[in-house]
Amino acid sequence: MSSDKALRRQKFEAVFDKIRDELIEHFKGEGMPAEAVEWYKENLNYNVPGGKLNRGMSVVDTVEILKGRALSEDEYFKSALLGWCVELLQAFFLVSDDMMDASITRRGQPCWYRVPHVGMLAINDSFMLEGAIYQLLKVHFRSEPYYVDLLDLMHDITYRTEMGQLVDLITAPEDKVDLSKFSLERHRLIVIYKTAYYSFYLPVALAMRVAGIPDAYPVPSSSTPLKPYDTALSILLPLGEYFQIQDDFLDFSGTPEQIGKIGTDIVDNKCSWVINTALKLASPAQRKVLEENYGRKDAEAGEGQLGRYDAVVKGVYEEIGIRKVYEEYEERVVGDIRRMIDEIEEVEGGLKKDVFESFVGKIYKRSK
Amino acid sequence: MSSDKALRRQKFEAVFDKIRDELIEHFKGEGMPAEAVEWYKENLNYNVPGGKLNRGMSVVDTVEILKGRALSEDEYFKSALLGWCVELLQAFFLVSDDMMDASITRRGQPCWYRVPHVGMLAINDSFMLEGAIYQLLKVHFRSEPYYVDLLDLMHDITYRTEMGQLVDLITAPEDKVDLSKFSLERHRLIVIYKTAYYSFYLPVALAMRVAGIPDAYPVPSSSTPLKPYDTALSILLPLGEYFQIQDDFLDFSGTPEQIGKIGTDIVDNKCSWVINTALKLASPAQRKVLEENYGRKDAEAGEGQLGRYDAVVKGVYEEIGIRKVYEEYEERVVGDIRRMIDEIEEVEGGLKKDVFESFVGKIYKRSK
Repeated sequence: MSSDKALRRQKFEAVFDKIRDELIEHFKGEGMPAEAVEWYKENLNYNVPGGKLNRGMSVVDTVEILKGRALSEDEYFKSALLGWCVELLQAFFLVSDDMMDASITRRGQPCWYRVPHVGMLAINDSFMLEGAIYQLLKVHFRSEPYYVDLLDLMHDITYRTEMGQLVDLITAPEDKVDLSKFSLERHRLIVIYKTAYYSFYLPVALAMRVAGIPDAYPVPSSSTPLKPYDTALSILLPLGEYFQIQDDFLDFSGTPEQIGKIGTDIVDNKCSWVINTALKLASPAQRKVLEENYGRKDAEAGEGQLGRYDAVVKGVYEEIGIRKVYEEYEERVVGDIRRMIDEIEEVEGGLKKDVFESFVGKIYKRSK
Repeated sequence: MSSDKALRRQKFEAVFDKIRDELIEHFKGEGMPAEAVEWYKENLNYNVPGGKLNRGMSVVDTVEILKGRALSEDEYFKSALLGWCVELLQAFFLVSDDMMDASITRRGQPCWYRVPHVGMLAINDSFMLEGAIYQLLKVHFRSEPYYVDLLDLMHDITYRTEMGQLVDLITAPEDKVDLSKFSLERHRLIVIYKTAYYSFYLPVALAMRVAGIPDAYPVPSSSTPLKPYDTALSILLPLGEYFQIQDDFLDFSGTPEQIGKIGTDIVDNKCSWVINTALKLASPAQRKVLEENYGRKDAEAGEGQLGRYDAVVKGVYEEIGIRKVYEEYEERVVGDIRRMIDEIEEVEGGLKKDVFESFVGKIYKRSK
């Protein structure tokens, strides 16, 4: 990490300490017993910071780009607070996803529900992470004219993410492999709803609200006003889809040194871009091999080893030439996205190309 | 049930069908696959109607009292929709509570998470019940001046209920009896946060918003304006506490014919008003008996039988004269509540005594 990036992260993390203390003070102020105060503090500390913080920090970055200047202390705090609301939403999802997926670790430590004494209480803990968002928004944004827009946005995106989670859970249950449910269309729906809305559109749309971007404004080239939130959506959903497809591809192709773990999508029966693309391109014989080996755990494989079924599936991927297909996809989608960005007409007080270009710059051809 | 009450219930239930269809149509409109549509429909049908509906219907009753006349069709629909939002909130809590409490049945059928194939997906299903609230509010109330007040109210009450659930879960875990954590103060905190806010204050406050009751208005007797939402809170929280204490007492004293089940608070280690009052009044010897027998399951007790530990605890309750203590509590609290109601000054377009009197009338000396 460059020292500039490390400093930005530090500054952003300092805001979390303030927010957490504020939430805890409010909780104490409601007369909650010390034991519950400690529990809630631990819930916040364990589950909210500690991730990559890309989603949260991109709220701040976007506000800076939109304003075209460094932020005042108050502007920084408000933008970072919205960033932490995205991180709280993410924590709400992750704590509960881990329970639904029976995951073991998250961010290098046991999943919250696996911490001694927590167990199923993690469900209510996840609720409180979501509840904290609205408590914070009320305290810091209630008097802003765009307060209600922030609430609608959080609600809409939360609900959509839950829709995506439902479709994902019924499409790729951990314990029952049925590749006939898989398709690239299904993959796209899951990725857009479960990930792209909250990871890409939400941070930018929150930043646009706090920067005062209106719902619509006139542009020179057209008699109909530009709807900047629709424009942002039309770019950020494919961008988010592309980001997830990279993730799926890196799970297959990335080395543990690159991605910090061994990819387990194949043994975990994940509805990944790679398997869906392979299914689309496979011959009947190859499809049969995929069906016989996908999502199977090799009991004889050693600790940290994936085993023979995984290797067989990867063999089919290579036969199909998945690396080439991925490269072509990447060039095509980045080209499409760049064209959409180029088409944005910049006007004073409106949307800026650089909001999106900075995302593409961070993501294009990443290998981790 | 009187035929009037049955008719009112039928009319209220018909609104649910509309709301559910609207939610499903919206969900389909997002491009969700048929399998997910069926799942969501089943989630709504299984978990939202089927309860007593007292909370939801009291929104409609309160709007009628406040308006002082029968409601137009649109007014009825909007009030009932808010009532169903309370029922959706309740469903969100119950689906998840059942998982945290490892409950077996709810409303005479298996808990949702115990339905085949549902399992841990019930967590996300509970989220979607909550998400549905904001989707409905946005469609039907976005253009109302009090929209933002409805959102703040739902958020505040949801968060408080989650606080109460946390305190309840760490005070009375199912598997570890520790009566030193119990007290009447702790019981009061849990009941008010976990139950009274959403079951009593929320329906009335929603009704007050839809009836256009302002945050404050002048009254003849005072130079400071009346704050009707504070007034409502100050009456409805003790009323909700009283209601829960009745429930706790009936779990001990009610016959299965009265309450429709065998009370299991003692074997389930519940932080109930009865045990807390007994602990306060017990001699050291009686306390020892309570500690040795509370929350214990008798392995030799037959199916549907509570066994000897339960009987011993009940013996101590009787020794202490818990029935008398309860009667005195009931008279005192109802007297206090009636005095508070009497103090309300009624002005045109403001709060009415009858909002609260109707609750007291339904609750006082109930035996089921």
